[in-house]
Amino acid sequence: MPSWRHIEDYTMKQADTIINARWLVPVEPEGAILNHHALIIRDGRIARIMPQSEAKRQYRADCIRELSNHALIPGLVNAHTHAGMVLLRGMADDLPLLTWLNEHIWPAEQIHVSAEFVQQGSELAIAEMLLGGTTCFNDMYFFPETTARIAARAGMRTVVGMIVIDLPSAYAASADEYLSRGLALYDTFRNDPLVSAAFAPHAPYTVSERNLERIRTLADELDVCVHIHLHETAHEIAQSVERYGARPLARLDAIGLLSPSLIAVHMTQLEVAEMERLAEAGVHVVHCPESNLKLASGFSPVAALLERGVNVALGTDGAASNNDLDMFGEMRLAALLAKAVAGDATALPAQQALHMATLAGAKALGLGERIGSLVPGKYADLLAVDLANLGSQPVYSPISALVYAANRSQVSNVWVAGRELVADGRLTTLDPAAIRSQSQSWRDKIMS
Amino acid sequence: MPSWRHIEDYTMKQADTIINARWLVPVEPEGAILNHHALIIRDGRIARIMPQSEAKRQYRADCIRELSNHALIPGLVNAHTHAGMVLLRGMADDLPLLTWLNEHIWPAEQIHVSAEFVQQGSELAIAEMLLGGTTCFNDMYFFPETTARIAARAGMRTVVGMIVIDLPSAYAASADEYLSRGLALYDTFRNDPLVSAAFAPHAPYTVSERNLERIRTLADELDVCVHIHLHETAHEIAQSVERYGARPLARLDAIGLLSPSLIAVHMTQLEVAEMERLAEAGVHVVHCPESNLKLASGFSPVAALLERGVNVALGTDGAASNNDLDMFGEMRLAALLAKAVAGDATALPAQQALHMATLAGAKALGLGERIGSLVPGKYADLLAVDLANLGSQPVYSPISALVYAANRSQVSNVWVAGRELVADGRLTTLDPAAIRSQSQSWRDKIMS
Repeated sequence: MPSWRHIEDYTMKQADTIINARWLVPVEPEGAILNHHALIIRDGRIARIMPQSEAKRQYRADCIRELSNHALIPGLVNAHTHAGMVLLRGMADDLPLLTWLNEHIWPAEQIHVSAEFVQQGSELAIAEMLLGGTTCFNDMYFFPETTARIAARAGMRTVVGMIVIDLPSAYAASADEYLSRGLALYDTFRNDPLVSAAFAPHAPYTVSERNLERIRTLADELDVCVHIHLHETAHEIAQSVERYGARPLARLDAIGLLSPSLIAVHMTQLEVAEMERLAEAGVHVVHCPESNLKLASGFSPVAALLERGVNVALGTDGAASNNDLDMFGEMRLAALLAKAVAGDATALPAQQALHMATLAGAKALGLGERIGSLVPGKYADLLAVDLANLGSQPVYSPISALVYAANRSQVSNVWVAGRELVADGRLTTLDPAAIRSQSQSWRDKIMS
Repeated sequence: MPSWRHIEDYTMKQADTIINARWLVPVEPEGAILNHHALIIRDGRIARIMPQSEAKRQYRADCIRELSNHALIPGLVNAHTHAGMVLLRGMADDLPLLTWLNEHIWPAEQIHVSAEFVQQGSELAIAEMLLGGTTCFNDMYFFPETTARIAARAGMRTVVGMIVIDLPSAYAASADEYLSRGLALYDTFRNDPLVSAAFAPHAPYTVSERNLERIRTLADELDVCVHIHLHETAHEIAQSVERYGARPLARLDAIGLLSPSLIAVHMTQLEVAEMERLAEAGVHVVHCPESNLKLASGFSPVAALLERGVNVALGTDGAASNNDLDMFGEMRLAALLAKAVAGDATALPAQQALHMATLAGAKALGLGERIGSLVPGKYADLLAVDLANLGSQPVYSPISALVYAANRSQVSNVWVAGRELVADGRLTTLDPAAIRSQSQSWRDKIMS
């Protein structure tokens, strides 16, 4: 009956990609699980989500992915990293923050960091992040235009930092030069579909009050976010109190930086009044649990922040301090650690950890309307996780399996804006052998 | 020149397996790294470790493994688990210990636990553990003879618990029956090369003083270890003080249980005098960081214990509370968490975490002379980890890469007593498809 078939096809709608997944976890609403649903991609966006049986009747596409043991979830958002630093992964471990920075990382950076270092480091970082299901990252590092270019070329979404630090580097000699290079970057990528820019003053102890004020003015004018390390260690607080008679958060408040545009990273040291002020001002917090533990920076009171309504996202920090760019690891550790810190095993349940790793990250970066959940109209930034692995079996709840048992090696397919960047565990836009080889050359150079 | 070749072969020694690894990390001495070395296996034991160039001249074997991107390390020792419980993985999360036990786990166990449940759970657990590089596990669960039989059949090393608990179960109706079944198990496996037995009284709050005394006497007579949950939560301590006027550790001390035969699991609540008493008595502590966080049980003062010379091993606990049997995850979390708990980023460096996951575990189980490090004469219980993965690149130190960046999916080959149980990431003695299918049947039964 070819004529019938023809009629049927004619009434069907055309999609770019149809993904049939065993479980679909949209994140909005939190905790929802859809069984045997299809996600329809058209023009880079999520067009529809519906039962597979319905989708078969209504849609056709050249590309259909059958993911019968998989959970389909929104792309993970790494809300704080220093991508290029991955070339220093494992170079110096088991050291306190200031020794690590002053005696190891900053000296190595002074010798080696260049546009080429950042290019090749970003390639490694982007490859690692995509393979692990991260579809968007918020970066702070030198030569951010290089990182932006590499990300855009690979098809990955990024918010790159217009970095400012009162220390000269191979990238810029002065705060003025950091700012002008940052503004040039902003102009270059202004209309890019994947790249956006945020101001990234390094920290209140490395950027002067005057420069923080300029950044606040510029951020207001351009309506972009401000991404800063804040309250990372007890030492930072003590030093600020000694030098300025105020805690860093109070200093930023006086400058007018506490707003929904502020992305405050680490926040391990917080008084109750400060948490209330963060909630009131709508500041976003990025929690980096592995980095905070490894550098003995302290425990962020995540459950207490969430209770007060603060939006808390997750970040890996740079691989030099982590030592990986694995959002599955951060998601699990965030869920585990929050319980022990709060002394309450019901704190930060699995679905909330998944929310932090996705939608909360998107909101922190000002992208909450565009990505972070599987909702029609949003960009198709998403990934599939294979739960057939024995280490994930049996599956009572896919959300529990994702947060408490899966690891990033189970990520099978990753899409950004509807483009499949990882297919069956393989990168489609980057060359892993070349990246491995150039990373090893950097290690040889740095060690010699 | 066939005659020359013949003479050369004639002078060469025969091995069973030759493993050529890029890095060999023997764990003894701690921190040592051997580059481009070969490990020679004969009769299930490590015969020699030497440069690959030497090995090529001296040894021949039918089986040669070229692991040119890999680190070869001693098999991981999971010093505390409940293997069969893996069938309850993710059944109930985000709950405090007693709610989780009383309202979810114990009721499910009362309905479902049988020899068949334990058999199929143990198969899943053993498959998961082997694939993740664990070569030996210390188990505490019902029907331990079943777990022992499954482990022996799969070729895995285990110490199974002669469980005692003052609660009836499908396995035994009374403490007397638990003990007599345990002693029968002890007799059955007495001369088994892979299986040994330890007494496993569940906890001081679930086993009467009289039964703990009987266990101490029997353990002394038979010279076997005693494996017990101890000081897991603040509630356990408070209840003990209220009921008996003494903390649990003091009660066990009065019974004479504090000795190098005691394997004390969890130990999140410890006073300084207690840590000193543990060191003096030679008690082994098993740290289960993921479980302690997830159940909000508390933070074990690991760095303080190590400083006092206490042998601290690592365990996953059961997958129902973890939710996996992944020793890479425990090793990394132990290293990270100890720093934050001690407020010292130099605490528990990577090589010490690797030592805890291997040799310290072997010592805790009374197997320190036989396994736990790559030393000639010990059994060839070992694994290879592929560090070519982009998420591990570049490698400055293989020990840092193993502890802070690798995950269990990078385990390529695993041997127990010289037998290759995982080859190129595949199980050689177990059928993953059958195990997956029977696990899913249990989930369906338990959920219905």
